[in-house]
Amino acid sequence: MKGFDFEEERIKQEIVKLGAKRVLLQLPEGLKPEGPRLAKVIERMGVVPIISADPCYGACDLATAEATRLGIDLIIHFGHAKLVKHEQVPTVYVEARATVTVAEAVEKSLPLLSSYGKIGLATTVQHVQTLDEAREILVRAGKTVVVGDAGRVNYPGQVIGCDYSNVRSVANDVDAFLFIGGGRFHALGIALSTSKPTVIADPYENTAYPINEEAKKTLKQRWACVEEAEHAKTFGVLVGLKLGQKRLDEALQIKEIAEKNGKPAFLFAIREVLPEALMEFPSVDAYVNTACPRISLEAPAKFLKPVLTVNEFMVAIGESSWENLLQKGLFED
Amino acid sequence: MKGFDFEEERIKQEIVKLGAKRVLLQLPEGLKPEGPRLAKVIERMGVVPIISADPCYGACDLATAEATRLGIDLIIHFGHAKLVKHEQVPTVYVEARATVTVAEAVEKSLPLLSSYGKIGLATTVQHVQTLDEAREILVRAGKTVVVGDAGRVNYPGQVIGCDYSNVRSVANDVDAFLFIGGGRFHALGIALSTSKPTVIADPYENTAYPINEEAKKTLKQRWACVEEAEHAKTFGVLVGLKLGQKRLDEALQIKEIAEKNGKPAFLFAIREVLPEALMEFPSVDAYVNTACPRISLEAPAKFLKPVLTVNEFMVAIGESSWENLLQKGLFED
Repeated sequence: MKGFDFEEERIKQEIVKLGAKRVLLQLPEGLKPEGPRLAKVIERMGVVPIISADPCYGACDLATAEATRLGIDLIIHFGHAKLVKHEQVPTVYVEARATVTVAEAVEKSLPLLSSYGKIGLATTVQHVQTLDEAREILVRAGKTVVVGDAGRVNYPGQVIGCDYSNVRSVANDVDAFLFIGGGRFHALGIALSTSKPTVIADPYENTAYPINEEAKKTLKQRWACVEEAEHAKTFGVLVGLKLGQKRLDEALQIKEIAEKNGKPAFLFAIREVLPEALMEFPSVDAYVNTACPRISLEAPAKFLKPVLTVNEFMVAIGESSWENLLQKGLFED
Repeated sequence: MKGFDFEEERIKQEIVKLGAKRVLLQLPEGLKPEGPRLAKVIERMGVVPIISADPCYGACDLATAEATRLGIDLIIHFGHAKLVKHEQVPTVYVEARATVTVAEAVEKSLPLLSSYGKIGLATTVQHVQTLDEAREILVRAGKTVVVGDAGRVNYPGQVIGCDYSNVRSVANDVDAFLFIGGGRFHALGIALSTSKPTVIADPYENTAYPINEEAKKTLKQRWACVEEAEHAKTFGVLVGLKLGQKRLDEALQIKEIAEKNGKPAFLFAIREVLPEALMEFPSVDAYVNTACPRISLEAPAKFLKPVLTVNEFMVAIGESSWENLLQKGLFED
């Protein structure tokens, strides 16, 4: 797979340094095809590599329990920056920085940004090294550029699926956001978290396009979910089992709030929040997801019952308002 | 849910005896709808119940890692008999014995067994208490009845998805098997493991029907999978992450055998063996599943690449023959 830096020399050095004998390779879906090739590189060192084949969409999902069960000395986690504070199992993060150039996609975004003067720049960890170049192109086009740094994630301007603190910290100072990266997922998160015009500069496709119509559509869907959940008689509260997704205390609080408002609530432990798993409990009318807030957010049609974020639940139960929710963000802490 | 004994009084006693403060309820899919009601029973004792919403299809899948992560004092595992030797987390098994009567279904099986004199009786843990009654009906009809006990599972005559040692131990002494229980899954396992005529007496539907055509169809599909895997250039070896499904040493041996035969092989750790997970590795042509042998066995069409049992792999790689496989069983140890 071209286009990403898998830092194979550093991986080898870390294995030697730790004297690891058995390593677990964990890659997000987009990078998984590279697993066997990387395993072969490691195997040539006389080390046993095991590739994790389970879904992985964030460093929140670090496979420490799996590693412990398999007697793993070292986890090599690809594609995400470090997120959990204490890993329990030695872990190397390979951020898989993209080697594609971004200039053309950023140039193509300029017509879409013509009516905005102050631009907030954001990206995923794959492209944080391109923000300076993108900034230059925007400045040359007469823009003022702001890169947010709220100190919660690893790099200024970086966003992750569930954390948009960097863009939110500068939302009031900019007219629009430019997101550099592939796919709609992160840009949609920016638009939903900031309510600002948001444009994607996609360096893989060398295209640029706005995401705000999709954000509007998502908000309408969320409104419908919240409204449906207002009529729920019984709530299920999902507690994530992934290392960085477990929020049991918050789940217990939600159960208490639901029951204070006359709605029985049940706690459900869950690893993968899949539509079919939630259909196994016909007596539950709506769920509150304290695990990954993005899982159900953009695909409510896949879930046959409302699956609310914690903030959405507070509206559905009558403890907050839709206006407050828009202000606070659908899924922000 | 009527028709099953959830042993609520025993559950309460065990909770009191252990002084448990936080319990995890784990139920197989068919019993999951009962989770919230049972949780409420436990909650009234001042204990925090959490229901596992992840798939669970055997006591091999005991949620000890999940329990540890959630600070659980006691796992209550429903619908399966004890399987793993040491649980690490205190565990109560509630076998969920069925309360349905089986006489009518067994009577209905008699015409289908008319040409057989010696009948092997088998069932799941839900109906082991009905074997005496079933035996009587068969004896009254002039049959000789045999109930196998190989000592590997909990009850004479009991079968579980991956263990048919009880029926195999008496296969040479009987003309046919009668399985008491719902669904085709276990009866198909008996037919595949013994190559004997097998009839299902379903006490839920009060019907009886043979399963051998389905077994023949499955064998043809398996033959096609093995043949396709013979042309594989690269193998993936699946290592199960569920407590009772982890066979890393066996997986390492399979990798060695594959590579001795000139086929590179990679180890994949996996929790749920799902078709989409296996499609993430385009460089792998066929998989060998050391986790749950039944997952891929009857639904090869769902998996776009061959997913072989360990025994099937030995045929595909040329270390055993199809005839030996039929003798040994598709997935027996």
